[in-house]
Amino acid sequence: MSIRTSTVGIDEVRRTCLAALCAAGVPSNHAQTQVRLLLDAELRGVHSHGLLRLPRVIERVRNGVCDPHATGRGAWKGASRYEVDGCHGLGPVVACAALERLYDKVETSGVAVAAVRNCDHLGMLAWYAKQATNRGLILIALTVSEALVHPWGGRRAMVGTNPIAIGVPADPHPFILDMATSLVSMGKIHDHANRGLPIPLGWAVDGAGQPTTDAEAAKGGAIAPFGGAKGYGLGLGFELLVAGLTGCAIGTDVVGTLDSDQPCNKGDLFIVLKPLNDATKSISNYLQALRSSQPADPRSPVRVPGDRGREAQVSRERDEIDIDSTVWSQIEKLAKA
Amino acid sequence: MSIRTSTVGIDEVRRTCLAALCAAGVPSNHAQTQVRLLLDAELRGVHSHGLLRLPRVIERVRNGVCDPHATGRGAWKGASRYEVDGCHGLGPVVACAALERLYDKVETSGVAVAAVRNCDHLGMLAWYAKQATNRGLILIALTVSEALVHPWGGRRAMVGTNPIAIGVPADPHPFILDMATSLVSMGKIHDHANRGLPIPLGWAVDGAGQPTTDAEAAKGGAIAPFGGAKGYGLGLGFELLVAGLTGCAIGTDVVGTLDSDQPCNKGDLFIVLKPLNDATKSISNYLQALRSSQPADPRSPVRVPGDRGREAQVSRERDEIDIDSTVWSQIEKLAKA
Repeated sequence: MSIRTSTVGIDEVRRTCLAALCAAGVPSNHAQTQVRLLLDAELRGVHSHGLLRLPRVIERVRNGVCDPHATGRGAWKGASRYEVDGCHGLGPVVACAALERLYDKVETSGVAVAAVRNCDHLGMLAWYAKQATNRGLILIALTVSEALVHPWGGRRAMVGTNPIAIGVPADPHPFILDMATSLVSMGKIHDHANRGLPIPLGWAVDGAGQPTTDAEAAKGGAIAPFGGAKGYGLGLGFELLVAGLTGCAIGTDVVGTLDSDQPCNKGDLFIVLKPLNDATKSISNYLQALRSSQPADPRSPVRVPGDRGREAQVSRERDEIDIDSTVWSQIEKLAKA
Repeated sequence: MSIRTSTVGIDEVRRTCLAALCAAGVPSNHAQTQVRLLLDAELRGVHSHGLLRLPRVIERVRNGVCDPHATGRGAWKGASRYEVDGCHGLGPVVACAALERLYDKVETSGVAVAAVRNCDHLGMLAWYAKQATNRGLILIALTVSEALVHPWGGRRAMVGTNPIAIGVPADPHPFILDMATSLVSMGKIHDHANRGLPIPLGWAVDGAGQPTTDAEAAKGGAIAPFGGAKGYGLGLGFELLVAGLTGCAIGTDVVGTLDSDQPCNKGDLFIVLKPLNDATKSISNYLQALRSSQPADPRSPVRVPGDRGREAQVSRERDEIDIDSTVWSQIEKLAKA
């Protein structure tokens, strides 16, 4: 089953998305930030974090659980740590405001950390990592999701999909890692269910905690962590780091990252570091050596995290893009609301 | 094939190890730090990082590539970043000196980072994480090893086994993650080769970059990253973070973590963070909920990173321990040198 797509000019996509957000009461500059993020994900081929998310964002604003005017209230706690109450603002709006403070601070402090709570979904973390590397800075970004992952050796969804992004400047292309600590995304499980396809054994357990190949049953169950016990340990560790610094909700108490009617209570953690001047050259050489090293499959060169998304983006950099037709008609309708 | 062990009183083990180090010219207080670390690993059942390592440490001192007197020269660069030239000192001696500075600093700065280069092997990172959690602090520790891991989709050893430790305070037991980003350790490959056992397909490639089940052939090849492309991305990302902050050697240029005759040129990165007071309670409750959640196998309760090592340590907390007889006789000989 293939997805029907609509081919739309990028300017029209941008204009329509902005109109949809503004119609819901989002201030123009905040709408622009939100659209830049979603469109960037769409162009990198990360459709799960692309325009598909816009209707949910708007629903949350309309339901009053997201305040589109809020930019967050921050305060420095100690020389290098910025604590932010997101005041239920849009994820990228609150995060970008906090990151701007870190970019300034890190020039004198060498490291700066922002602990953010009470803001909406951040979206694709790679976007923030790219911002940092464009400024010649290193970023580590962590965020937490609703509990969808079972502990290794467990049966219940108790840990978030807890992604990490790491951005490190390099020439000609930065290192941009952006990955969830779940084996697959819940979106992928839903996609299999929608298509009536089975899932491989090991991806998920059903609602009773039993291993299953039935995608429909997995939707009410839990996804496996990636990489077995190690991936479980990391995903859990990231959740504890965010909770320890932000005091946010944790485990099965996290809400508001998937629904449209609950204030989001997860936390986010950003660590910005200034790389040594002479390190960038050796890092760049190393990454190029990896890219040109002998591949296992001659048709598939060795890649560095960030390469695939950048290549996808380059191949899509034309005047128009293909969007899932259902998503596009939803957005068009919202723009006319 | 089982390993012959000697049962030795702990006091005697400690005294003999100290004597062996002091005979090589290691000052008594530095020898004590080194022995505390190795003995802790041994008691936690992490034999690969236990007393087995002592002869190598001593060899490096005797060969003049490790300076047992050095504690490192550190300087604050910015408010919260401490840059350390390890001056080729013993890993735990230099690292502990740097961490003491971070523990002081974090009380006012909220975050403190140490970037260390030119010191010897750190040993088991969990030991440092426990130190931090005992003080109520969070630690993230990263270090780099010689290139032993192939990039995902590649054939050559180009990435270190690059372990991470994360320590987060909690009651009654802290979260202590300590894991390499390789699928298995090179020690495990050597162990299979020594016993004449094959290794599972997927663990490693041979010197020509071909997948192999021959442990002997794998010794000259490369280990797989854990968790496929994601584990590769993380291991590589950790190496770049360390290199970006320390300017240390990177990739196949790293030496001195396995041999006895080259000054160690890898780097280490420590990030210390002070958790919010009210976070520890919810983290503790969450970890207990994980431990008491329904396990996939009723005989195997769900664990939290750190539990297994702590349980092993408790079960070994008696007056004597069992040590690999070959290792013990080596150490005894060194103590009499």
